[in-house]
Amino acid sequence: MNQLEVCFTPDNFPLFHNERSIVVVIDIFRATSAICTALHHGVEKIIPVATIEEAKAYQAKGFIAAAERNGEVIEGFSFGNSPFSYINDDIKGKTIVLTTTNGTQAIEVAKHSYKVVIGSFLNIDVLVRWLQQQDRDVILLCAGWKNKFNLEDSMFAGAVVKRLMRSGKFDTTCDSAFATQYMYEHVENDLFSFLENSSHRKRLEKLHLEKDMHYCLTLNIAPVIPVLQGDCLVKLN
Amino acid sequence: MNQLEVCFTPDNFPLFHNERSIVVVIDIFRATSAICTALHHGVEKIIPVATIEEAKAYQAKGFIAAAERNGEVIEGFSFGNSPFSYINDDIKGKTIVLTTTNGTQAIEVAKHSYKVVIGSFLNIDVLVRWLQQQDRDVILLCAGWKNKFNLEDSMFAGAVVKRLMRSGKFDTTCDSAFATQYMYEHVENDLFSFLENSSHRKRLEKLHLEKDMHYCLTLNIAPVIPVLQGDCLVKLN
Repeated sequence: MNQLEVCFTPDNFPLFHNERSIVVVIDIFRATSAICTALHHGVEKIIPVATIEEAKAYQAKGFIAAAERNGEVIEGFSFGNSPFSYINDDIKGKTIVLTTTNGTQAIEVAKHSYKVVIGSFLNIDVLVRWLQQQDRDVILLCAGWKNKFNLEDSMFAGAVVKRLMRSGKFDTTCDSAFATQYMYEHVENDLFSFLENSSHRKRLEKLHLEKDMHYCLTLNIAPVIPVLQGDCLVKLN
Repeated sequence: MNQLEVCFTPDNFPLFHNERSIVVVIDIFRATSAICTALHHGVEKIIPVATIEEAKAYQAKGFIAAAERNGEVIEGFSFGNSPFSYINDDIKGKTIVLTTTNGTQAIEVAKHSYKVVIGSFLNIDVLVRWLQQQDRDVILLCAGWKNKFNLEDSMFAGAVVKRLMRSGKFDTTCDSAFATQYMYEHVENDLFSFLENSSHRKRLEKLHLEKDMHYCLTLNIAPVIPVLQGDCLVKLN
């Protein structure tokens, strides 16, 4: 049996890390939802970077760069992490450099794992099917909010735990896997209302991003698996 | 309104720490349950120390010392963290030095807070009443298991969140406070069965400690508030 674990924040990841596991990075509102959307809609590569300085350095070399902090686009960048920005014919076939408050930091801490893939509700079924075929331990790494636990990432982790445990190919002794599955099963039929109580969601609401949030909670509308190859996220073939 | 937050592990505490908050340290199985039991049954002081070496140094000076790691008493010490060890006429009025896998580490990281108190199901109502009277922000600090999230500590946090939020004196934007309250409200009528799925509980079961676990989930049987004064935990007057 393969082991399944859930890590709530990037800071905690060193306690989970091993070089044999597949890591699924999760930042539902909105980095990993944006990444799935971009690759599904024809962006060729995404280069995730942890800092705004790195994104600026790429920009100076002529790359298209996107930067978000605290839910807003950073001045001087073309766009942030709204998934809708990535449905755009002008960026088809292009490489985009991306830095976000939480999601790209999570990718950074996980990069020495066996494989890093990107999870969101937009690609959940294709991702789960692929994970079941790999015969590897899996760590679900929530980006959280500034290294604190958040509800939307952990609810997605719960959705994946539920599906993987049902497959009979995974086992877990991880209390966070158990907790996320338990909560998800109680709220899956009305995830949006449930997340009304999430502090991160409240932050996004203030920024009038309700449309983004509904999109980010829609199942299977960007059925691709972004995978980290070297420094780039590309579509897994 | 006072703010209420839940921190899942000692490692994460620096993100929550501020010098004005009251911190409630929680290690249900079994350190904080043992501490409440000891002070309720007449032990005068407990000196929590993070390492076995420190406990040995106190022992060499003639102190009674208790040490637990991974659920078992360390060789050379009188006892570990089973609450029943602390119901004993021989230790009434005495000072006991204690080191445990998780609980005493949590006390260590919190010690520069405004006030550190000890929480368990055994003292929940008296603790909640006192917290409501303080007009201070409160951080519920779960000891977890080796810096990973665990179910029993977070379920206790949820029980306290539920009670404090109902008082109308607290507010929270903390997703972990929301999650623990949500889960607790779903399981409070059968906490023991729910925790059968907890990995830590499984570990304790292997060590035949079911009797301890039932005890640690019993409400209000050790109605004292242990508070850190200098390096010692004593009964709050």
